[in-house]
Amino acid sequence: MIRDLLRLVDRPGMLSLAGGLPAPELLPVARIDQASRRVLAESGARALQYAPTEGMDELRSRVGADLQAPLDNIIITTGSQQAIDLLSRCLVDPGDVVVVESPGYLGALQAFIAADADLHAVPADGDGLCTEALESQLRAGLRPRLVYVVATFQNPSGATLSPDRRRHLAALAEEFGFVIVEDDPYGELRFRGDRPTRLRELTDRVVTLGTASKTIAPGLRVGWAAAPGWLQPALVRAKQATDLHTSPLTQLIVADILTDHTFMAAHLSTVRSTYQRRAETLVAALRSELGTRIEVADPTGGMFAWVHFVDGTDTSELLVAALAANVAFVPGSAFVTSVKAGFGGPVSSHVRACFATLDEEALTEAARRLATVSSRQAPDRSGLAPTDRAVRG
Amino acid sequence: MIRDLLRLVDRPGMLSLAGGLPAPELLPVARIDQASRRVLAESGARALQYAPTEGMDELRSRVGADLQAPLDNIIITTGSQQAIDLLSRCLVDPGDVVVVESPGYLGALQAFIAADADLHAVPADGDGLCTEALESQLRAGLRPRLVYVVATFQNPSGATLSPDRRRHLAALAEEFGFVIVEDDPYGELRFRGDRPTRLRELTDRVVTLGTASKTIAPGLRVGWAAAPGWLQPALVRAKQATDLHTSPLTQLIVADILTDHTFMAAHLSTVRSTYQRRAETLVAALRSELGTRIEVADPTGGMFAWVHFVDGTDTSELLVAALAANVAFVPGSAFVTSVKAGFGGPVSSHVRACFATLDEEALTEAARRLATVSSRQAPDRSGLAPTDRAVRG
Repeated sequence: MIRDLLRLVDRPGMLSLAGGLPAPELLPVARIDQASRRVLAESGARALQYAPTEGMDELRSRVGADLQAPLDNIIITTGSQQAIDLLSRCLVDPGDVVVVESPGYLGALQAFIAADADLHAVPADGDGLCTEALESQLRAGLRPRLVYVVATFQNPSGATLSPDRRRHLAALAEEFGFVIVEDDPYGELRFRGDRPTRLRELTDRVVTLGTASKTIAPGLRVGWAAAPGWLQPALVRAKQATDLHTSPLTQLIVADILTDHTFMAAHLSTVRSTYQRRAETLVAALRSELGTRIEVADPTGGMFAWVHFVDGTDTSELLVAALAANVAFVPGSAFVTSVKAGFGGPVSSHVRACFATLDEEALTEAARRLATVSSRQAPDRSGLAPTDRAVRG
Repeated sequence: MIRDLLRLVDRPGMLSLAGGLPAPELLPVARIDQASRRVLAESGARALQYAPTEGMDELRSRVGADLQAPLDNIIITTGSQQAIDLLSRCLVDPGDVVVVESPGYLGALQAFIAADADLHAVPADGDGLCTEALESQLRAGLRPRLVYVVATFQNPSGATLSPDRRRHLAALAEEFGFVIVEDDPYGELRFRGDRPTRLRELTDRVVTLGTASKTIAPGLRVGWAAAPGWLQPALVRAKQATDLHTSPLTQLIVADILTDHTFMAAHLSTVRSTYQRRAETLVAALRSELGTRIEVADPTGGMFAWVHFVDGTDTSELLVAALAANVAFVPGSAFVTSVKAGFGGPVSSHVRACFATLDEEALTEAARRLATVSSRQAPDRSGLAPTDRAVRG
């Protein structure tokens, strides 16, 4: 659904809150150009030849240092989407239960569905995955192979798993023997405070996924996984059959930039403050334009605001009118799996709005357009005929 | 097996005929550096942002023009290995029959095995896949979903499917309703003459795979597939779940270089003449050193010579001694699937020798080392005890 939507939002004049794209003007084009020149000058043919399936050691050692994992436990992937796909292939047999957050990241669902997993949605709220709900289901007999979470600045809700729930989830993994997939694309995009404790620091039943897509550039297609030692050989075999290895050129570009601590500190500082300013601008504009019709938490990091139309507006219907008014977003119902019903209700009145891509003027105008179309779209609570719908029809 | 082998061949002093690596000194580092600068200067953030799953239109149109296929039928992949993997996912259900050549390309076998295909090996000889043998099996009831062939300068044998067999295979595809996967990584590396007629020119039941790995550089990880229109949407969905899309940076680098016809003509001319000279050097040295113990066809293109020890030497055993003498190759038995027995016999006395990677002096020395160890290793036809083996043991 996001893919079909993104085709429409290429129209001139469209203000899109729909994508999950990093701010294009913050992509470090010049630094990547410098890195590419340096890598080709220093590594030459080695950056362009066939390379080890596990990845280039320059990048594996950098990632391993960040995640406090031995180099041997790091595999470099073609974006972290590929890591999800490889985990599905290695750990999920048809019919195996995989627990996902509802709402949750669509791309992971696609990979698990491709592996014929029995997807099992557990609700997530403002503190992330409801681990109490998960525990109830585990006590009732649910036996997942994997539990997939975006624990920090989740997509779509922006929520961060609370410290108590992190400890709870880790304890459940040890008691019930499942593997936690800790997908962490947004963790570096925090607006304040320290990094939350990683799940991998609480139990060794964790595969942690990371990516250069949000901190450097998605177009390099460089991600990684830190996996327990017993899983590493299977991941490498699966990657070998899938695409042999990830580009050594883009791997070495990422390694060059990640080891430039001065650049990375300044770059991340710019990205964080820009996204924070944009998040505040969007949320303020939405509150100002839509008043008590919506509730939205203040984002603390990441790329998304999760807007709840408390008046019950169906945001899938709202989207049609919004596109006609040149503003786009992703309706909440896009982030729940249809495999298990029961959690679709509340999210049908939500909107995922990406604040990262547009500048503040555009975000303010997008909020204005959204308010205009949603006032025409407001659910009719008066009992009168919904004339606006008749007009649209 | 090749992977384990390639670990050993990193030793200093090793002369390896084992890999399938392009000549490192011919990788166009400077031209890729120029392309990278140009792409980043001209496309900027577009080269570094999320991009369409199907690939960048600059490259799709170039590939489409080469293959006489509409742009809409081209999907760009993370190397052509990924195209084989995507085809396995889209077309092969567990237990579906996939016909492969024996001997044939290992990486394709891995992808088909990952899809739980029922692999069915059909013998290949100096004119490529034995289509008469395939027809017999089809008439006897075999119903493959896919038939995978490297029709030009095959890996490992270097053989090219004859014109008669190409027509025969195309007719069989139409009669029996299977899809031909025409994997063509080596077609541009011909030493003389014109390109053979592509299978896609003979029937529309063909997916043609190509790659920049052998003509520009493997480390860019850029390949492609030209698929029938009915298959394209499934391939795009599968790629979306697998890695979202291939790097737009490396795609645009490849597009920049492929559209530079002056450069490509000169570069391909250098690669072809270098590989031809090396092929002739290696084959002459092997004949000179090993005499009537071997038979080897004169390569007409590609990267591999296929050497038959007509004295029955077991080349898997020979490899152990060869590695100790600092020369490496891949034994023929590595290229037959164990899934269907019956074709393993003759290839166990073959060697795949890559002539692309080493220079002529090194190739000559490699042939000398191979002759030295194989004379110690020659099958004992005298009835005397094999003392050399006792020494080795």
